[in-house]
Amino acid sequence: MSGDRLHGAVDRAARTGIKRAVGGLLRRRGPRREDLPLSTWGLARDASGALVLDGVELRGLLDRMGSPLYVVDAARLASNAARFTARPGGASRSCEVYYSYKTNPIPGVLRVLHERGVGAEVVSPYELWLALRMGVDPRSIVYNGPAKAHASLVLALDRGVGLINCDHRSEIAQLALAARSRGKTPRVGVRVVPPGASMGQFGERIDTGAALRAYREALAQPELRVVALHAHYNGEISELHVLDTFLSSLLAFCDELKSRLGLELEILDIGGNLACPTITPLSPVARRLATTFACEPGSRPPGSVLSIEAYVARVLERIEGHYAAAGRPTPRVFIEPGRALTGDSQMLLCRVLSLRDPDPAGLTWGVLDAGINAAEGVRNEIHALLPLVPRAGEHRTYRLTGPSCTLGDLLFPACSLPPLEPGDGLAIMDTGAYFVPFATCFSFPRPGIVMIDGGRERVLRRFETFDDMVSLEASERHDE
Amino acid sequence: MSGDRLHGAVDRAARTGIKRAVGGLLRRRGPRREDLPLSTWGLARDASGALVLDGVELRGLLDRMGSPLYVVDAARLASNAARFTARPGGASRSCEVYYSYKTNPIPGVLRVLHERGVGAEVVSPYELWLALRMGVDPRSIVYNGPAKAHASLVLALDRGVGLINCDHRSEIAQLALAARSRGKTPRVGVRVVPPGASMGQFGERIDTGAALRAYREALAQPELRVVALHAHYNGEISELHVLDTFLSSLLAFCDELKSRLGLELEILDIGGNLACPTITPLSPVARRLATTFACEPGSRPPGSVLSIEAYVARVLERIEGHYAAAGRPTPRVFIEPGRALTGDSQMLLCRVLSLRDPDPAGLTWGVLDAGINAAEGVRNEIHALLPLVPRAGEHRTYRLTGPSCTLGDLLFPACSLPPLEPGDGLAIMDTGAYFVPFATCFSFPRPGIVMIDGGRERVLRRFETFDDMVSLEASERHDE
Repeated sequence: MSGDRLHGAVDRAARTGIKRAVGGLLRRRGPRREDLPLSTWGLARDASGALVLDGVELRGLLDRMGSPLYVVDAARLASNAARFTARPGGASRSCEVYYSYKTNPIPGVLRVLHERGVGAEVVSPYELWLALRMGVDPRSIVYNGPAKAHASLVLALDRGVGLINCDHRSEIAQLALAARSRGKTPRVGVRVVPPGASMGQFGERIDTGAALRAYREALAQPELRVVALHAHYNGEISELHVLDTFLSSLLAFCDELKSRLGLELEILDIGGNLACPTITPLSPVARRLATTFACEPGSRPPGSVLSIEAYVARVLERIEGHYAAAGRPTPRVFIEPGRALTGDSQMLLCRVLSLRDPDPAGLTWGVLDAGINAAEGVRNEIHALLPLVPRAGEHRTYRLTGPSCTLGDLLFPACSLPPLEPGDGLAIMDTGAYFVPFATCFSFPRPGIVMIDGGRERVLRRFETFDDMVSLEASERHDE
Repeated sequence: MSGDRLHGAVDRAARTGIKRAVGGLLRRRGPRREDLPLSTWGLARDASGALVLDGVELRGLLDRMGSPLYVVDAARLASNAARFTARPGGASRSCEVYYSYKTNPIPGVLRVLHERGVGAEVVSPYELWLALRMGVDPRSIVYNGPAKAHASLVLALDRGVGLINCDHRSEIAQLALAARSRGKTPRVGVRVVPPGASMGQFGERIDTGAALRAYREALAQPELRVVALHAHYNGEISELHVLDTFLSSLLAFCDELKSRLGLELEILDIGGNLACPTITPLSPVARRLATTFACEPGSRPPGSVLSIEAYVARVLERIEGHYAAAGRPTPRVFIEPGRALTGDSQMLLCRVLSLRDPDPAGLTWGVLDAGINAAEGVRNEIHALLPLVPRAGEHRTYRLTGPSCTLGDLLFPACSLPPLEPGDGLAIMDTGAYFVPFATCFSFPRPGIVMIDGGRERVLRRFETFDDMVSLEASERHDE
């Protein structure tokens, strides 16, 4: 061993020691990726230990269908829809639910939701087109978003879309113009930003008076029937006090609309933002620590997150209570869940392609066949990761990357799992929100999507092929 | 004005004052987005001020073709290819250039490069398929990456791909097995990580002895002709001293391969990583500051970045000098540029959809029709932004977001531009690396791609349609 090499070896040994010590201090305080009971997702293991969803053994499914593969759980979708649309005890009504299409715009998934009384919340001309194409009753569509092209407004007006929310002031005149040109009087709302909500590019602020000015402007347009208030919290709602503060701000503004403009709202549309209990946000700093010290970040206990039932009950209790106390008619309550409705109804099955020898700190690097191309979400969220058929043996710490040739394709900086071998299957849980719409064709085609429904498999979307990936290209023949 | 509202107004005024003051201190030290001369990109303005590329007026092009639209500059592509493939004065050879397909895999772009003597560097089964489909001579293909499926190795072997680099040790046995099964003896290399290069999931480390062990293992496989060394710096190469250190490490390892294993390499494949001079990396912290204080981040002066010519000359000078001094035959030199070859040959034209009133700090928010769905790269890089037809008037500070309904769709936290109006066109410059492959279908279809070549327009890829976006879905009919 040369002097340089000896020096390097000592240096590395010291670094490894430091990392191990710090890693030990940082080690997870919450549950590990695989600590939640399988019943959390309606999963079980058969006698051989293989993971089973609704009677379908998932390793066999992956073998038959191909990998990577999104798997949708129809039963979970239906049950989440039922929980959102149920009328809580003590309430005189239920919430009217509009699914945020952008979250997971798979027609087969949307179909299940619509069949269970959920409407469509669309935020682009494409999503409006998709909802209409699927036969959603136009009155069950809410059209939001900051980029409503004129042609799509005309389509929405002609088909009689139930509610159009102006994202910001300049959309009011644009919508009035379109309505005038089609001789229509659409039902509209204005998106507002209550004090305390995160600021961003959407909506008019209540605290500056901009929201009130926007309503005054909308009310002055004879073509617009101003019936609704629209808002999002703009951050994750996982605790009751956050929801309470948000609702209080909105209700105070509803009172102001009544007292100052004489406007009694028909609809209070409080948006989405409810957390998915089995997904934990992962900050860039926490991710960096997990990477540097190879320690698995801890998830929050799912029970610590506001449930769908508790959310719906509180929303109705607060709104009905407020209007009852004021002796005024309670508006209809619209909600636009995304993540909380579909996040935990879908998993991404994938395979281990290769594994390296453990490094001196005991960390084993592995390559998966799904990466940021199909699972971008795991870069800023903690998701459970389950072996489809766990092998016997001591747990090891793995660092799992995707298949693409870029340093950024690091999915799991550190996760504790039973021993893995190339070819083994894994399930990345809770991929039903912002995974499919954020998928890219970066070096690899996009996965197929299958639904498990009453023990039967149904292909919702076939695997993208190499030919599909060049299907929009002009002919390669040259005119020279 | 109520007490609460007065308090809020005072609070906001104080915050605005602080932000303005800090923003002033932070204000850009480098050129602004629009300060570079138009000739940097071969652009000009006509008598009316409209931006023109190679005789084509770009606002008119956007009107005719649709928006958003990627525009490829064939002349710049050809000239960059010529600069990379040229033999520098004093050198006895030129570099052999293999374009990194993953960077911008548009067949019409690849065609231009291949016609000018550039080979294909592919990192996935899809990219190998694409290169072969385009008729690239298999001997001009280098197959890299950590996820070479068995079927694609068989394809590479049967077609006689010029070089297969094993990404890490476990690929050596896999490749030998495939070669044995096909009765082939492929030319191979091993990817190594030199000391000083960023660590990651790729390659075997030189400093731990793992790289040498991998070569010993490869040499023991009778089916493999071990001819090459493969490495990437794994970070941006923008300065000469970085390149020098990287090359020195590699050359020292070449000597070790010779002295310890008797291996004289035929090929030294030094990868890519050369910077694009008109793109400046943007750290998350710098982006955050730009957002909080609405101050435009400064770009680096393009002249401060190692040019293509200086890079190629230095690479050959160092390698030829090293082998000449040792009295050994100089290996062929392969390079795999991506960003530096195509980054500045493409722009993304888009439109302003709407604008809000300036906020109290003078910042004007606007919505563009292209967002992270088509221009994800601007979240971590500074790109020049040019009005297609600038309006007269004082510059203002704009914050420009994309069209999607998500807070993260913030493209330009702050940029100084002449006055904008809805409908105005803008060019996001230097979108020829990691924009098209990272595009998603998030709420909006993917843009079209057109090439300007000798004053003529040629559609390379048509605009994605709504029907295309559901073309992989199973029939919506139910079997119930």
